[in-house]
Amino acid sequence: MSRSPGRKQENHKISRELFVLTYGALVAQLCKDYEKDEDVNACLDKMGYSIGIRLIDDFLARSAVKKCRSYSETADMIAQVAFKMYLGVTPSVSCNSATGNEFSLILDKNPLVDFVEELPAERASLCYCNLLCGVIRGALEMVHLAAEVSFLQDRLKGDAVTEIGITFLRKPEDRKHRRN
Amino acid sequence: MSRSPGRKQENHKISRELFVLTYGALVAQLCKDYEKDEDVNACLDKMGYSIGIRLIDDFLARSAVKKCRSYSETADMIAQVAFKMYLGVTPSVSCNSATGNEFSLILDKNPLVDFVEELPAERASLCYCNLLCGVIRGALEMVHLAAEVSFLQDRLKGDAVTEIGITFLRKPEDRKHRRN
Repeated sequence: MSRSPGRKQENHKISRELFVLTYGALVAQLCKDYEKDEDVNACLDKMGYSIGIRLIDDFLARSAVKKCRSYSETADMIAQVAFKMYLGVTPSVSCNSATGNEFSLILDKNPLVDFVEELPAERASLCYCNLLCGVIRGALEMVHLAAEVSFLQDRLKGDAVTEIGITFLRKPEDRKHRRN
Repeated sequence: MSRSPGRKQENHKISRELFVLTYGALVAQLCKDYEKDEDVNACLDKMGYSIGIRLIDDFLARSAVKKCRSYSETADMIAQVAFKMYLGVTPSVSCNSATGNEFSLILDKNPLVDFVEELPAERASLCYCNLLCGVIRGALEMVHLAAEVSFLQDRLKGDAVTEIGITFLRKPEDRKHRRN
């Protein structure tokens, strides 16, 4: 079914609980499919990537954001506009490197795990929300920003907060410039 | 992670696109896992059922609806409150039987298939949105209403609308009463 021109007039807002539970069903299915946590994590990341490269159009159309002029502005945009729009929360952002290309999104509360008590003992290496990393990576790639995205901390694993690390991969000319 | 008492103060509203794309990833994964459409449909229904029996608490708490006094009122509640809350759309409701226990929810537009062009030829029997049937069935069961829920029409299969049929299963005493 194609997207109709009148689509933007509609109410796109929904309660997130059905989404959160559906996401849980997806992770549970992958845990049935793959024995190793690493394979589940990789699959979630890959699925997220496919979603990110499609979601970016929706994001740009709906948010009407302008081009970001720095990695820092891009990280703020992901936290304050994209997370707010798609997950209803706003992570705080911190810059982790003097070179200005490493950032953390820090979630005091992660809505995606609202219905998850804890990870089963045999799934200790599972990155439950790894889809999000893939989504961010895919969406960034579509605006010509290569990045590595991964969980640095996870409340599901006993950490105090949930932290997603984003490392923007500098282009060769950037690196050359830095060296000079 | 347990649900904190302050949870109701939060913003639960999100844009539905991430949900719709994540649902697509779930269906695609099940299509990889199961060769037969019937098995995918059954799995989606089962997953939906598990979601429905958990989602009902959230629905009752957030909607603050009172007990419905008739099947008709229940069908309206599903369409006007639940669908609106969790999918951002309001199906129309029609009663399909003189006995007053069969209803249809009719969706002119189904947001869950927003990004789906059409079903692949080899997946002609797939009920892409079958999770929804399971969710409705599970949620109804938790308020002591047994029901059969299934797709009667599907725009993805070329029908003019998408139609979900709900048949409330009368209790033995109801049937006895009718016979007398």
